[in-house]
Amino acid sequence: MIARHFTRPARHTGVMLGVGDDCTLLAPTPGHQLAVSVDTSLAEVHFPHAAPAAAIGHRALAVSLSDLAAMGATPRWCLMALTLDDADDAWLEPFAQGFDTLCARAGIDLVGGDVTRGPLSVSVTVHGEVPPGEALTRHGAHEGDLLAVTGSLGGGAGGLAAWQSGERSLDDPLLAAYLLPEPRLAAGQALRGLASAAIDVSDGLLADLQHLCDASGLGAALELEALPLAQGLVERLGEGALQAALSGGDDYELLVGLPEGALESAQRALGALGVPLTVIGRFTATPGIQGVEANGPGGWQHFSGATP
Amino acid sequence: MIARHFTRPARHTGVMLGVGDDCTLLAPTPGHQLAVSVDTSLAEVHFPHAAPAAAIGHRALAVSLSDLAAMGATPRWCLMALTLDDADDAWLEPFAQGFDTLCARAGIDLVGGDVTRGPLSVSVTVHGEVPPGEALTRHGAHEGDLLAVTGSLGGGAGGLAAWQSGERSLDDPLLAAYLLPEPRLAAGQALRGLASAAIDVSDGLLADLQHLCDASGLGAALELEALPLAQGLVERLGEGALQAALSGGDDYELLVGLPEGALESAQRALGALGVPLTVIGRFTATPGIQGVEANGPGGWQHFSGATP
Repeated sequence: MIARHFTRPARHTGVMLGVGDDCTLLAPTPGHQLAVSVDTSLAEVHFPHAAPAAAIGHRALAVSLSDLAAMGATPRWCLMALTLDDADDAWLEPFAQGFDTLCARAGIDLVGGDVTRGPLSVSVTVHGEVPPGEALTRHGAHEGDLLAVTGSLGGGAGGLAAWQSGERSLDDPLLAAYLLPEPRLAAGQALRGLASAAIDVSDGLLADLQHLCDASGLGAALELEALPLAQGLVERLGEGALQAALSGGDDYELLVGLPEGALESAQRALGALGVPLTVIGRFTATPGIQGVEANGPGGWQHFSGATP
Repeated sequence: MIARHFTRPARHTGVMLGVGDDCTLLAPTPGHQLAVSVDTSLAEVHFPHAAPAAAIGHRALAVSLSDLAAMGATPRWCLMALTLDDADDAWLEPFAQGFDTLCARAGIDLVGGDVTRGPLSVSVTVHGEVPPGEALTRHGAHEGDLLAVTGSLGGGAGGLAAWQSGERSLDDPLLAAYLLPEPRLAAGQALRGLASAAIDVSDGLLADLQHLCDASGLGAALELEALPLAQGLVERLGEGALQAALSGGDDYELLVGLPEGALESAQRALGALGVPLTVIGRFTATPGIQGVEANGPGGWQHFSGATP
């Protein structure tokens, strides 16, 4: 089954001995650091079991790649631990295709894996490379740095709501944002040397901003009216749109600190990639996140912070 | 929960940025190849759900480390994708302890992970290093090379049978072999430059020997009477002992090809490590595995090859 669906020639360099031995042998680029991360996607927890198989394959890789994006690392190799309830070719073929298509676009090779029988789950370990000292980290932001985010927010939560209300077309921009998130790999690499700190928005803007603040020993002031809401979010969620953007999670955008002088360069670099970069606040010496209380009645204080 | 149970200072070199950012940053040893592998251990498929938590932690890492052993690689870093049904401290503490104790002994650092709520499962990705051209592989055996195995066989299947008949003491050598397998890391490294091919016995001797034969384009002649049976196996399984040694799996011993002239050096090197190395046959030009039919009535032809 592995041979039929997942064995493809390595597209890129550095694979010295491929799938089919006890280990794969890789040749890391001399003088680079290796960035590694693992994420598990479990059916009915992280994605609907009935989602298109190609989207499940894409998404399981995308959430791991997003961690490489947040470090500014160049993707190299991945391994997949796949647990399957039904090893049905009609499901596996598009699943592998969705995974492989994103592999090709990201420039990463699948170099190992394990397949087990059990409740549907996909764990993907990713490896990227970055020159020493150039990785983006959660720490490093300074007081006064601008706070900026790529793309738009709330698409993950909005798409989940769309799925739950019966939407099944991936032409729906919210559902596509939820099921086919696009890791901001090129943007992350372009922000090396410009951003002072970075994280990907997987837990929700407020939670991930808190991680940045904690790691950098700072607070932040948010400008709620500046938040770039996902296309169709207000139409889908009405008053809940802001909550989705603040705490919905699963957006896989990059949230970064930027010294004021680096903003123009960053927006130009990301603009060339077709990725919007929006300033949504500023890092402060005062701990905590200011600005969310300004939302008035029905605002943040009424939100649980949990994924809707 | 991750911080409480799994965060420990890195014991070894090469961890530039540890757990707590989007990725961990590692510094591979210049001029070495990276050996990577992933294995999933799922409750009630790969181990009894009711097994001691410390043993589950040990075993999940051991089965991945065994793949590094089979390549002769030096362990460096691992990541754990843990899916938990009950995140109970009374279970997690010994689980993490069992995992960490083997980490310490193997000289490997846990550098990343993900914890999810769901059916109990542990996927471990391991990274080892090996000088270029020195890794043991499945291919490389030559006609006439001796076939040898470390330690003893049948302990995995014998221990599973012991568990199924109610044995719960890890003082039972078979149960210990099944629940606390010892990856042959030092032996694998000592066999670099001596063994012509290697694999770990995870699927069962016959299945894994067939993998070696396929990769090397050879057959093999087995000497059944030479098989080193695990301590207590005949007492536990009677006539089934040989089947357990041939096809039980889960033994995590190394099965290697050895040029005749390398045998003495290999036995001396492994003897210094306290690891027995037994010659159990020879590689042949004729495809297929000879010798198993010689077992007479009740012999191999009656066995299914499935794990009991």
